[in-house]
Amino acid sequence: MEFINNPREIEERSFEIITEELGDRVFPENIASIVKRIIHTTADFEYADLLEFSNDGYESGMEALKQGKKIYADTRMIQVGVNKKALADHGIEIVNYSHDPDVAKEAKLRGVTRSTVAMEKALKDKTVGIYAIGNAPTALYTLIEKVKAGEAKPDLIIGAPIGFVGAAQAKIELDGIDSPSIRINGRKGGSPVVAAIINAMLYQLGREW
Amino acid sequence: MEFINNPREIEERSFEIITEELGDRVFPENIASIVKRIIHTTADFEYADLLEFSNDGYESGMEALKQGKKIYADTRMIQVGVNKKALADHGIEIVNYSHDPDVAKEAKLRGVTRSTVAMEKALKDKTVGIYAIGNAPTALYTLIEKVKAGEAKPDLIIGAPIGFVGAAQAKIELDGIDSPSIRINGRKGGSPVVAAIINAMLYQLGREW
Repeated sequence: MEFINNPREIEERSFEIITEELGDRVFPENIASIVKRIIHTTADFEYADLLEFSNDGYESGMEALKQGKKIYADTRMIQVGVNKKALADHGIEIVNYSHDPDVAKEAKLRGVTRSTVAMEKALKDKTVGIYAIGNAPTALYTLIEKVKAGEAKPDLIIGAPIGFVGAAQAKIELDGIDSPSIRINGRKGGSPVVAAIINAMLYQLGREW
Repeated sequence: MEFINNPREIEERSFEIITEELGDRVFPENIASIVKRIIHTTADFEYADLLEFSNDGYESGMEALKQGKKIYADTRMIQVGVNKKALADHGIEIVNYSHDPDVAKEAKLRGVTRSTVAMEKALKDKTVGIYAIGNAPTALYTLIEKVKAGEAKPDLIIGAPIGFVGAAQAKIELDGIDSPSIRINGRKGGSPVVAAIINAMLYQLGREW
C-alpha cells in the first residue's frame, strides 16, 4: 500500500482538493480558511452554505484572540480539538465546566442541563471573551438570555450546537441580540466544527508547525 | 424563550425525530441504535447509507466489551466523547497514545504521522480488543498491515477515519482482511461518529443515566 504519510503534505493536499471541489464558490481569504477547515474536519461541503457571520464576529473574535482572552467551550471535545500549541503561543486558555462536580450537582437539583449551569458559571468569569457552543442549545439559550438582560457582553459567540431539539431554533435567537457571532445554521454544527473555526482563526494569528 | 431543558427528554425527542425522518428505512434493533446515535451526533442522515458491518463486527465487538477489553482510540476526541460512566460500569478502559512525548519524538524522526507510531504502540498491548479510528487513515493502514502480517488479531476495528487524503481508500483496504469491523464508507466519519458507535454499543450492554 502506498500512501502519503507526512502530516503536512496530507493537510496541504486535503485543502487543495477542497478548494478544487468548492469550484466557483470563492470566499474572502479569512473566511475561506474557516470554511475550508470546517470541510476538512467534516468532509461535508454543506457547511459552506451553513456558516454565517454577524455583527463583525470574525473581526471581534480575532481581536479577542490577539488580546489573549479566555475561551469558554461547552464540551471537552472542543477543548481537546483546539490546537494546544497555537493556544499556548498566544497565551490563550480554553475552559469547560460541564463536567465539574458542583455543576453536575446543581443541574440535577434544578432539573436543567449541566450545559446551562456550566454556562452560568462561565459567565461569572469576566476574563472569558469567546463563548464556543458545539453541543448544547441550552448553553446558547442561557447565554442569549444573559446578553438580553445586559449581564453579558461577549467578544464572540460561536453558535454551533448540533441536534434535533432546539439547536436550529437557538441559533435563530442570535438574531435577537447584537453580539458578534459566527454560527452554523440549521441542525448541523458540533464540537469538531467549533474546534475547526477556532483553529482556523488561531492559525491566522500565525502558525508554527 | 421556551425550550426543553431536561437532558433525558431532549435525547428521547431527538431519537423520535430521527426515527420519523428515517421513515421506511428500518434497521434491526441493535443496528438501528447505532445508526440513530450517529445521526443524533452529526445531524447527517447520509450516515445511514455509509455504515457497514463486516465479519460479525457487531457481535465480536459486543463480546469484547462484555469481556472488558481495552479500547484503543486514535484521538483524544474519541476518548472524551465516550460515556465515562458507561465505561466504568463495564470496567472498560479507553486509551490514546498520539500525544505521548515518545510517540511525537519518534514520528518526527521517522517522518511519519504520530497516528502511525501511536498505533504501533497500541498493537504491543495485548489487552486491547477494539481499535477505533476516527481521524488518521495512516493509523488504519498501519493496523491493516499488521493484521495482514499476522501480528494483530483485533476483536473489532472501527474504521471511520475522515478526510480527503487516504481515508476512503484505507476503509476499502479493510476488504483485504477478515477482521471484524464496523466502518463508515467514503470520506466521512470522524471522532464523534466513532464515539457514537462505541456509546451505542455500551448502552446496549445496559445503561444507567
